[in-house]
Amino acid sequence: MPEKSLRTLVSDLFLSYGLTRDHAETLTDVLVWANLRGVDSHGVSRVPRYLELFENGQANARPDVTVDVLRPAIAIVDADSAPGPVALTRAMDEAVSMARSTGAAWVAVRGTVHTGAIGYYTERAAQYGMAGLGIVAGVPNMAYPGSNTSAVATSPLSVAVPAGKHPTVTLDMATAVIALGRIAQLKAQGKPLPEGAAVTKDGRPTTDPAEAAIPLPVGGAKGAGMSLLFEMLAGGLTANPIVPAYHGGTEEGRRHRQNALLMAIDIAAFTPVEQFRSTVDATVDAIKALPPSDPDAEILVPGERGARTFDERSAAGIPLPAKLLASLSQAAADKGVAIPEELPSV
Amino acid sequence: MPEKSLRTLVSDLFLSYGLTRDHAETLTDVLVWANLRGVDSHGVSRVPRYLELFENGQANARPDVTVDVLRPAIAIVDADSAPGPVALTRAMDEAVSMARSTGAAWVAVRGTVHTGAIGYYTERAAQYGMAGLGIVAGVPNMAYPGSNTSAVATSPLSVAVPAGKHPTVTLDMATAVIALGRIAQLKAQGKPLPEGAAVTKDGRPTTDPAEAAIPLPVGGAKGAGMSLLFEMLAGGLTANPIVPAYHGGTEEGRRHRQNALLMAIDIAAFTPVEQFRSTVDATVDAIKALPPSDPDAEILVPGERGARTFDERSAAGIPLPAKLLASLSQAAADKGVAIPEELPSV
Repeated sequence: MPEKSLRTLVSDLFLSYGLTRDHAETLTDVLVWANLRGVDSHGVSRVPRYLELFENGQANARPDVTVDVLRPAIAIVDADSAPGPVALTRAMDEAVSMARSTGAAWVAVRGTVHTGAIGYYTERAAQYGMAGLGIVAGVPNMAYPGSNTSAVATSPLSVAVPAGKHPTVTLDMATAVIALGRIAQLKAQGKPLPEGAAVTKDGRPTTDPAEAAIPLPVGGAKGAGMSLLFEMLAGGLTANPIVPAYHGGTEEGRRHRQNALLMAIDIAAFTPVEQFRSTVDATVDAIKALPPSDPDAEILVPGERGARTFDERSAAGIPLPAKLLASLSQAAADKGVAIPEELPSV
Repeated sequence: MPEKSLRTLVSDLFLSYGLTRDHAETLTDVLVWANLRGVDSHGVSRVPRYLELFENGQANARPDVTVDVLRPAIAIVDADSAPGPVALTRAMDEAVSMARSTGAAWVAVRGTVHTGAIGYYTERAAQYGMAGLGIVAGVPNMAYPGSNTSAVATSPLSVAVPAGKHPTVTLDMATAVIALGRIAQLKAQGKPLPEGAAVTKDGRPTTDPAEAAIPLPVGGAKGAGMSLLFEMLAGGLTANPIVPAYHGGTEEGRRHRQNALLMAIDIAAFTPVEQFRSTVDATVDAIKALPPSDPDAEILVPGERGARTFDERSAAGIPLPAKLLASLSQAAADKGVAIPEELPSV
């Protein structure tokens, strides 16, 4: 599907749920960006879930997002249950703006929903010639060493740095071995999971994607420890802890919500940005020229495949599964939103 | 060996190599702290290596460590090849001091050697009631997906947050599946490595600790990506890149050196510190009360085992292998340093 038609449809859908045009376009941009990058699990496949969150009131279509600058290098964004893309885009823009004067800034986001692919926000800092860092903490859905239950969240980490001739180098990783979206993909393809990636809801190790329910943390104590510290930082600094509330067992404690921390570092305050970009380029070149284990396999750096897919899909359009197209079409029909000709009629 | 005798010996040894008393004590404190925590691979077993670095000039016994505050929330410490503990302790103290006014501060360290266990520096921030973050980038010694060579470094990440009734929660993890020190331990014990932890110097997978030379990154692209981004940040911001220089193949490019980034976040600027500590306590309690997979196994949080070992060893002394004791004894004899009675005479 052409990117432009998809943007119009998704944005119109969000408008029909009461979002402002500005918020609808931001939310659309983050989702379509993920599709363009090839991260379809975080793309417009999430639209039905967002609509559900708006309907049941867990996400706020007309949030009063406030920014409180607490000290010159820190701020807190109260998301008022805004969709993650609305709150986090605002937060990273604040971080970039503050970092211009202080050299670095750290903005916490309290109480948002579904942040999407967080590489979007760190790349945003890189587009301003800054380095971007981001972490998110959410509702437990991953095991913890010694307990094969939903103990902590698959909370991601992203770091992005601007390059020169190469695309922005963007790490965007969950702290789990495997994403829940990837398990669903393997299930659809009828392929087994790798060993040690997930357990069933009863905590038994499995490679059957139909049974796999709880991903395991990457590197055991390492991935679990990162997730736990992200929770303590994000939940602690925003005074909105999720993990203890979740395990308290109340309905409110299990409600979907996320906290985040985003950081921008003004490279120019350390060193000329062009020199930094050249260093990143030289580092990428050194990695790509490593002696390969398999002479036919290309060595990639973080974000490289995504940048390539972005170019391809920007030109050729975004492939979307028929089931998703039908679901978007139905959602549009339900709200009287114009259905683009690429979609099945309802 | 009693902690006090060990401190005196190690500090006297460093003094005999020309360090100031202040620097000798800081370096000793970081190494002995690692032993007290049970991280013997980063403890006084490194003393012979430091002495070698002082002798061959790769480490500077009388460094001119300078601090340049570039903007209110960022600074750069030029280590002048000071031992890591000297440079990084200074850097974290600067970060803490700056964060008091700006809310958060980020201090880069250029050109240090052997940082030791970086949990020491992040815990230092926690002792001031702040959250501490740290990353280090060093000389390649770990594989990269698609190249089973020394491609990137096992560069660590540490995050520490202060708790209330519980010990400080401290994550301190390398980006490798297994530490080189752990491979040496397994070799000494005649035990095999886990599968998928390391390769031989020719890049063949192995579980034989005698053959294992190059650790693999934790989670493949995830650990490797973290290491690479840490290098780009630390090497780029300090204009002292290591990875491209190393792969350039010159002797200078392969010289031992490290860059680091340390961050302090002033919790009190976000929320009352007591509330933050309570949140951390409640999170620890929730994790430790998770339904266990093995009813006889305790669920641990990051840093918990280290804190327990710290208490035990502070009381009972630090167990050190006979070979290391003999080596320290010999080093002391060579320099005319008094040998404590616990050590073998030379």
